[in-house]
Amino acid sequence: MKEQLTIIKVGGKIVEDAKRLQQLLNDFSQLTGHKLLVHGGGRLATQMATQLGIESKMITGRRITDEATLRVVTMVYAGLVNKNIVAQLQKLGINAIGLTGADMNVIQAQKRPIETIDYGFVGDVNKVNEKALKECLKQKIVPVMSPLSHDGEGNLLNTNADTIASEIAKALSPHFKVKLIYCFEKKGVLLNPEDDDSVLSRLNRKEIEKYIQQGVIKDGMLPKIENALKAVECGVEQVVITSADSFLCDSGTTIQ
Amino acid sequence: MKEQLTIIKVGGKIVEDAKRLQQLLNDFSQLTGHKLLVHGGGRLATQMATQLGIESKMITGRRITDEATLRVVTMVYAGLVNKNIVAQLQKLGINAIGLTGADMNVIQAQKRPIETIDYGFVGDVNKVNEKALKECLKQKIVPVMSPLSHDGEGNLLNTNADTIASEIAKALSPHFKVKLIYCFEKKGVLLNPEDDDSVLSRLNRKEIEKYIQQGVIKDGMLPKIENALKAVECGVEQVVITSADSFLCDSGTTIQ
Repeated sequence: MKEQLTIIKVGGKIVEDAKRLQQLLNDFSQLTGHKLLVHGGGRLATQMATQLGIESKMITGRRITDEATLRVVTMVYAGLVNKNIVAQLQKLGINAIGLTGADMNVIQAQKRPIETIDYGFVGDVNKVNEKALKECLKQKIVPVMSPLSHDGEGNLLNTNADTIASEIAKALSPHFKVKLIYCFEKKGVLLNPEDDDSVLSRLNRKEIEKYIQQGVIKDGMLPKIENALKAVECGVEQVVITSADSFLCDSGTTIQ
Repeated sequence: MKEQLTIIKVGGKIVEDAKRLQQLLNDFSQLTGHKLLVHGGGRLATQMATQLGIESKMITGRRITDEATLRVVTMVYAGLVNKNIVAQLQKLGINAIGLTGADMNVIQAQKRPIETIDYGFVGDVNKVNEKALKECLKQKIVPVMSPLSHDGEGNLLNTNADTIASEIAKALSPHFKVKLIYCFEKKGVLLNPEDDDSVLSRLNRKEIEKYIQQGVIKDGMLPKIENALKAVECGVEQVVITSADSFLCDSGTTIQ
């Protein structure tokens, strides 16, 4: 029988808030079974870029990553955010290891081809080295993934953290019973964005398509939902979109 | 019989020079047997601190690490320098993994006690988790160590890269036949600092003490030599101080 693996993805808004991050790591440390954390950090990267006089350009929520920006995200994601999370988890008794996609060749990607927009050093995932991650997990080492991949040609690539989480979830599904939890600031996918209690508890592709048409699901939620659906359709046992404050409880929106 | 392990330590002057770093990584990739790389990056950290308006304070070559400086060194060492080296090594076919002391609890340290000087978040190494490093090496994974340790209480600590290299060398000596190579800009320890060809090919403690008294060995070379001697006295097979450009050749100064 497959063992349980919980993958938690936590975004920039929580990562930049020391108190909420601490709470999330406390909760994470209490999860039983195998676990893996994927973090963002975009808002901290934007702050650091501003301090260094580098303009942050975003198109539909995606960061245009020129060479100077790649240096900033490498420093912030793989250094500042990742290693502080690892040190905090060690304090909590979790034997964490912080990784980018380059470490142990865990995530190989290709630079996004230029169509209408040149995103710069942004990676589309080609392959997850599930063997290396599985080996860590079996040794009770908890991977902490920063949102960077590499192209195998010596370049790091900025890669969406939601995508990294779903790609890892899919790649590990043949080996583990995977539960993928996207943590963000709302309690789940809301029917009415003004009403925090209007959480849609279950959603399948048909319902999702209806809500997208109706404009209920939109903006930043769109890629998250798309990643979630793809994960479910590729064998991930369960995908949940929920609040960072309550992922231990069985609340939020389950994608099925 | 013990297997061979070569530990290369490379400092900030080479790390900041893309071309020399590339050459060093090419050479490193050609080393046979197990290997491990320890890098510095102090000069890049100083540059980044300056860009961020943070003053770099050094006392006898050691960086005073306040909270803002710790953030900078975490970004530069564990992010920018470490992950670019890892990506470059992957390109060269080396299955590298970038680590701080917090990752897998590889290096636990204590914050240096305040005597006359408060060094801030600077760590003195307590314990190397040689089991975790050994496990990596046995799996043909090549650790790339940044000069950061942690205190087990959630804090990263800035730690001298020469010390990290010698502590790892000592800890792995019961398991491997360890050769520790300190790479720097000169061909070795020079009898006459004006003459690059006056390399002292072999030095033991007695000779070292004599040269220190005579002022031949001084400044930045002092802690390097002290680390080298300690390593030899703790079972490291061979310690060499040599040029980054020629560590593959059997040149430089051997400490015995």
